[in-house]
Amino acid sequence: MNKISLKTVAELAAHVNGSVNGDSSTLIKRVASLESASEGEIAFVEDAKLLERASESRAACLIVPEGAPDLEGKCLIKVRRPKLAFALIAEILHPPKKEQPAIHKTAHIAASASIGEDVYIGPYVSIGERARVASGVQLHHGACVGDEVCIGSDSIIHPNVVLYDGVTLGARVILHACVVVGADGFGYVPDEENLRHKFPQIGTVVIEDDVEIGAATCIDRGALGETRIGRAAKIDNLVQIAHNVQIGARVVIASQTGISGSTVIEDDAVIGGQVGFGDHARVQSGAIIGSKAGVLPGKIVRPGVWWGIPVQPLEDYKRLNAHLNRLPQLREEVRELKRQLKELQAKLDAQE
Amino acid sequence: MNKISLKTVAELAAHVNGSVNGDSSTLIKRVASLESASEGEIAFVEDAKLLERASESRAACLIVPEGAPDLEGKCLIKVRRPKLAFALIAEILHPPKKEQPAIHKTAHIAASASIGEDVYIGPYVSIGERARVASGVQLHHGACVGDEVCIGSDSIIHPNVVLYDGVTLGARVILHACVVVGADGFGYVPDEENLRHKFPQIGTVVIEDDVEIGAATCIDRGALGETRIGRAAKIDNLVQIAHNVQIGARVVIASQTGISGSTVIEDDAVIGGQVGFGDHARVQSGAIIGSKAGVLPGKIVRPGVWWGIPVQPLEDYKRLNAHLNRLPQLREEVRELKRQLKELQAKLDAQE
Amino acid sequence: MNKISLKTVAELAAHVNGSVNGDSSTLIKRVASLESASEGEIAFVEDAKLLERASESRAACLIVPEGAPDLEGKCLIKVRRPKLAFALIAEILHPPKKEQPAIHKTAHIAASASIGEDVYIGPYVSIGERARVASGVQLHHGACVGDEVCIGSDSIIHPNVVLYDGVTLGARVILHACVVVGADGFGYVPDEENLRHKFPQIGTVVIEDDVEIGAATCIDRGALGETRIGRAAKIDNLVQIAHNVQIGARVVIASQTGISGSTVIEDDAVIGGQVGFGDHARVQSGAIIGSKAGVLPGKIVRPGVWWGIPVQPLEDYKRLNAHLNRLPQLREEVRELKRQLKELQAKLDAQE
Repeated sequence: MNKISLKTVAELAAHVNGSVNGDSSTLIKRVASLESASEGEIAFVEDAKLLERASESRAACLIVPEGAPDLEGKCLIKVRRPKLAFALIAEILHPPKKEQPAIHKTAHIAASASIGEDVYIGPYVSIGERARVASGVQLHHGACVGDEVCIGSDSIIHPNVVLYDGVTLGARVILHACVVVGADGFGYVPDEENLRHKFPQIGTVVIEDDVEIGAATCIDRGALGETRIGRAAKIDNLVQIAHNVQIGARVVIASQTGISGSTVIEDDAVIGGQVGFGDHARVQSGAIIGSKAGVLPGKIVRPGVWWGIPVQPLEDYKRLNAHLNRLPQLREEVRELKRQLKELQAKLDAQE
Repeated sequence: MNKISLKTVAELAAHVNGSVNGDSSTLIKRVASLESASEGEIAFVEDAKLLERASESRAACLIVPEGAPDLEGKCLIKVRRPKLAFALIAEILHPPKKEQPAIHKTAHIAASASIGEDVYIGPYVSIGERARVASGVQLHHGACVGDEVCIGSDSIIHPNVVLYDGVTLGARVILHACVVVGADGFGYVPDEENLRHKFPQIGTVVIEDDVEIGAATCIDRGALGETRIGRAAKIDNLVQIAHNVQIGARVVIASQTGISGSTVIEDDAVIGGQVGFGDHARVQSGAIIGSKAGVLPGKIVRPGVWWGIPVQPLEDYKRLNAHLNRLPQLREEVRELKRQLKELQAKLDAQE
Repeated sequence: MNKISLKTVAELAAHVNGSVNGDSSTLIKRVASLESASEGEIAFVEDAKLLERASESRAACLIVPEGAPDLEGKCLIKVRRPKLAFALIAEILHPPKKEQPAIHKTAHIAASASIGEDVYIGPYVSIGERARVASGVQLHHGACVGDEVCIGSDSIIHPNVVLYDGVTLGARVILHACVVVGADGFGYVPDEENLRHKFPQIGTVVIEDDVEIGAATCIDRGALGETRIGRAAKIDNLVQIAHNVQIGARVVIASQTGISGSTVIEDDAVIGGQVGFGDHARVQSGAIIGSKAGVLPGKIVRPGVWWGIPVQPLEDYKRLNAHLNRLPQLREEVRELKRQLKELQAKLDAQE
């Protein structure tokens, strides 16, 4: 749930550098979809082709592409990128809920922890020894902050998140419910009886500013060094990030993807859902990897669009699939060749 | 653990419209497997072919198919569908544990929340402003109920579940431990510097009556509208359901499947484990999708059995696999054709 | 974070049956990687080929293979298996953090529960009726221990773990944050209206000694019997283990793998990440299954290395892939054959 704050169309247009067509004093209270929007609501049309549907919308205001024709009786904001403008407008119409600064009476805070100003600490939150929680942080129900954890300013930690000892979060980080940061990596050395001894998992995790991480995602601590999530990376639900993985800035990773130890995802790469990475792989900036792909250990994925198991350039994947789909036909052609060859042989034999 | 309540074979047979062969006053206290069952226990045989094994069972009573022969010295209940009868009998022999109505002294309940009769609220549960918890609900250890959440009657919320603000649960819903309902969907709009702005995630989640959801499954809130789980749907552990997904009534989804934004699964569809769905796909009623399948964005999956990546009718998948397995042979045939052709050419050349 | 305890090189060498070359009184306080190690730190070189890099290391001591040459000015411990020695040395230099025995004032412990000596019970932990917690156990923030649960000595239960009623853990078990043990298995019987009735899920889970389980992994209780995790098995994060699965001793399972009901993984098998198992499959001792593989229901996987969907011996998988990659060439060859055949036919026709 988000707080609602009224704005005029003029104010909203100014916020996104748009030009208004219609009554710029119209009051807007909510964003909505084109189909459902009505009084007090603003919607957007990204694609000029859909403007016809827009004319039927009951929205109080529409965000449309620059150059779109005026629509009779409609209030429009014209901008270069309507969907981006819609997102930016939603940020001011629906600022994320911010709890009043307070420390719940059930919270347990170590005496050596340092807590900044304007912090909200909800029920059943515990904060360990020498932990540092910067100003404006919100720690919700049941979150567990280990010893020597640092949390940067204005971060939002949703319910039942677990931060193991010593991990570091930047500013404005959002961790959704049940995220686990800093559990031991999965590394063992077998002895003569195949009993596995834990390879030391004594490194840490650093999550940089403006990262958002989805519910129940797990990020293991480094074995000896650190696991790092780069600035403004966005990671979906139920993702696995193993020890010593390095995620670059602005990387996007969809749900249920798993990344094995020491793999590097460079800045701005985009990773689909349910992708699996072997260890020590590297994804270069400019690479986009489709959902369900499999990346072998040590593989270097260069810029471009990649697909399949094992991962390959999308064009190769498509070509291979086309070949696969023509396999029955190929088999038929080979049969026909056999038949014709036999005929020819018979002819020749008859000549002799 | 479930409470145990004694019943006679006559009572159990009446409950499932079965006919008794043997001593109908035999007391039964538990269900058990055919192999392990002994005194006081009831087992079942679904398949008439397995009746021979049944004669060796030490169960106090056996549920067998209609028309099965009597077994000397055995007490039988004959019914049309023994496994279903077994499940129905287990429901009365092993009713789910129900905590005595009580509110634990450590629970934190907002003053504006409304709590029905006969509710159990366990330790470290918090309930937000204006939340409504209907009668008979059980909220276990550490569950977090956000502001304005509604929970229908007799629902069971297992430990450490997180319900974000504003989500709605029907009656008799079961959420297993660490389920997360209503976290923000994964939607962003990149700006000129590839910094991603959150597309508004201000919709909600509605879970209808009689839904059961497995441990650590995540169901994101709608971006602008709602994410909906239809009546009596059953969802396994660690499943990802993205924003605005619509799951129909009685749908079954196995573990670790991921469903991207706005995809629709119609009533009664059956989805295996580790399946991945692109966004805006649609699975029609009557479709069954095998485990590990991949469904492309926008794909419509019609009734029938589907398999593979990308998903295709099972028959096509099998045919393609047969072709694949004959590839080495096809290559051999082409080699042989080449050899024969060369021979023929040589012959012809000799004639000239 | 782990406690640090100083040792001499002589003490460490004795612990791993190594021989010292250099000043055996050198004090060591930490393990580190070859690249980052400096004063007071010990590193290792597993492969004799990397010894050259070792000579540049600033580590206070290096663990090297037996037979490695002395390095001027370096303190060495020579052992048969340097990486194993490194792990064993880390165990004594970095013993896992152990909280002082204490019961937090916010913990809720049933009067009928039995708590051993030297137990640590953290904030917001609840322990159910007749539960038994052996000596030396550590139960961290928010863990939920159900009725009649048994936890063996020196086990470590990380924050927000949920143990349903009646499950049993051996000694020295480690459960990472948000693990769920004993939720209902996913089994239903549909009635005439396709409403699903729960097949009884009244069995239990047994986790044997020395098992370690990663964050957010879910292990369902047996339907009628038990789900069992064998001694010293190691399971990664976000793994799904269904009802009645049997995991053998020393089995290793990587992240996001899912194992369906009643499947058996025999002792010492190794399973990659994102693997999917149908129900009633069996993996024999000596089998290694690569990441992302798919194992059909009922499949028996024999010793050896396996790969692919459906799973097949790695050699077959590689051969098939080679054939696939030559498909374009095969098609070219068939085209060429057609052309030549047509030529031959034309020649023959001309002769007539």
